[in-house]
Amino acid sequence: MTSYITLKNDRFLKALLKQPVDVTPVWMMRQAGRYLPEYRSTREKAGDFMTLCKNPQLACEVTLQPLERFPLDAAILFSDILTIPDAMGLGLYFEGGEGPRFRKTVSTMADVEHLPIPNAERDLGYVMQAVRTIRKELNGLVPLIGFAGSPWTLATYMVEGGSSKDFRKVKSLAYDMPEVIHALLTKLTQAVTNYLNGQILAGAQAIQIFDTWGGNLSTAAYMEFSLPYMEQIVEGLIKEHEGRQVPVILFTKNGSQWLEAMANTGASALGLDWTCEIKQARSRVGDKVALQGNMDPSVLYANTEAICEEVGHILASYGSDSGHVFNLGHGITPDVAVEHVAAFVDAVHDLSIRYHR
Amino acid sequence: MTSYITLKNDRFLKALLKQPVDVTPVWMMRQAGRYLPEYRSTREKAGDFMTLCKNPQLACEVTLQPLERFPLDAAILFSDILTIPDAMGLGLYFEGGEGPRFRKTVSTMADVEHLPIPNAERDLGYVMQAVRTIRKELNGLVPLIGFAGSPWTLATYMVEGGSSKDFRKVKSLAYDMPEVIHALLTKLTQAVTNYLNGQILAGAQAIQIFDTWGGNLSTAAYMEFSLPYMEQIVEGLIKEHEGRQVPVILFTKNGSQWLEAMANTGASALGLDWTCEIKQARSRVGDKVALQGNMDPSVLYANTEAICEEVGHILASYGSDSGHVFNLGHGITPDVAVEHVAAFVDAVHDLSIRYHR
Repeated sequence: MTSYITLKNDRFLKALLKQPVDVTPVWMMRQAGRYLPEYRSTREKAGDFMTLCKNPQLACEVTLQPLERFPLDAAILFSDILTIPDAMGLGLYFEGGEGPRFRKTVSTMADVEHLPIPNAERDLGYVMQAVRTIRKELNGLVPLIGFAGSPWTLATYMVEGGSSKDFRKVKSLAYDMPEVIHALLTKLTQAVTNYLNGQILAGAQAIQIFDTWGGNLSTAAYMEFSLPYMEQIVEGLIKEHEGRQVPVILFTKNGSQWLEAMANTGASALGLDWTCEIKQARSRVGDKVALQGNMDPSVLYANTEAICEEVGHILASYGSDSGHVFNLGHGITPDVAVEHVAAFVDAVHDLSIRYHR
Repeated sequence: MTSYITLKNDRFLKALLKQPVDVTPVWMMRQAGRYLPEYRSTREKAGDFMTLCKNPQLACEVTLQPLERFPLDAAILFSDILTIPDAMGLGLYFEGGEGPRFRKTVSTMADVEHLPIPNAERDLGYVMQAVRTIRKELNGLVPLIGFAGSPWTLATYMVEGGSSKDFRKVKSLAYDMPEVIHALLTKLTQAVTNYLNGQILAGAQAIQIFDTWGGNLSTAAYMEFSLPYMEQIVEGLIKEHEGRQVPVILFTKNGSQWLEAMANTGASALGLDWTCEIKQARSRVGDKVALQGNMDPSVLYANTEAICEEVGHILASYGSDSGHVFNLGHGITPDVAVEHVAAFVDAVHDLSIRYHR
């Protein structure tokens, strides 16, 4: 047991477990990112994006940058959801402005069978090392969030070979050869579980599962191809570490229709995009889970008065008591002004006092 | 009164009004489109996309092409939602593969004040002429659908100057200067109402309002910037023409959360994307409106057996009686095989008989 196990600020973890807090905690998806000039400078130093991800010292540096500027209540590991398929041998690379690409793709049962299940420390050691380095550097300031992509989301990239507009290949595979896609999802579920447990053992104090593309499925397909695999992951995760519960946040972008089902997976909290009303979401999930979200990231383009007003609306919509972690409904965009972010974070803390008495 | 007022097949109009039909009617958004070799050939003949839209004879030709191949139950005017901003003087153009662009954009109250409200016959005569030509050529085969974009959707293009990923400019404007965006939306509401009434007088027998980007708003913003303006349009439309009711279909992509509110606008039917379950949608809207949708267009990439199975699921999900118009949850994509479309259309008719006894 080292001293950095003691947290100076644990309101993020408490809110996820619906325990009383003084103010509503806040962090932002992609808070270590291009809107920060210091991020752009580290990124330039590193060269390309994957070199930055694979260098634990630099990954730690960018993870901490937003915390030096704003009183955020959590740090999130700087990494990419595609580290797993990369470690499975697909050869991840980024081409100027074009998003992620893979040198190899998956389309047959034989392809799936040949995929190895990575060992977290052996095959993704750079991520584990980054987690350990960040924990040390954070020195108990705030908790560290680890993360992974959902099996369905990872499968879309592995079958398409990169980003996709209509998910032609992965959906054809799902409808034409469901046994192949299920075999792939089963393997990914194992890989993600191992990877996240590795992050927890290395020091991640909460976990977020990013289901970026589950919301593009029909309800029936979501219930077949995305949700059950996330549920298996939640079941397979280490529940407690360093004497603390490790909460899991499930975030399906465009998934607000399925909150009731998501609340039954055993996750501690659900991430919400900005299209749903958090008040309604709260009444739908009841006491089962905490909620995280859900301001439209584009509101950060507006003036600071409008930003504070929107923060106030969302806080009022959630209402009294713990169980709300404030966040954007999606990652912060690259051209937001830093002063707007400062106003946003302060507004959450200042305006939420009245809901925690 | 000319003879082509008599419809040989009116099950589309009947289903929109929840009157008994023999089988579930079906059409596809973007059914006159690039997946058809004959469309690509007409398009090539025309040169660019807007030339095709502006030539009533060619617009009629491509409108009828899918009906010559498949027993579809409705035709939809071939045109673009951006004809209105173009007629308002913004200078619409298309650049190779880059989507629509405008030479002028809107960002101040003065810009809004300078926008003229187009007169349908004088300023958009090519669309009215296309409607008249198509009606004549259809000769009562099936009803003709007219359409327009929603005010919010048109505003996004007019403020951004084209397509957008995060709607930075239009959302900033909405939050920073709500009076400007409301002035723009009010003007667009008038323009769309005039335009759609022009289409009805020219011969459109049903109307669809495409709210492509309303679903990217928060619930509060949707209720402020998109839905009320669509409601005003529905109120302002000609209710009956040629002795028949003119049904209006409201389609907010990614709007399934707001079906109850949409059902209160006076629209006859709501379009559904594929993420929601039509059974659940039906129970939420009750008898107020018919429903149109909602197969994932990507299912058309799967084998014909899988396509028929999915059609069967959706028909069963809606269940018995009229009030369902089968469609995709979004436009058909360019690289779908024509034989798959044929299987899809036939499956809707064949498998739906049992629900209409």
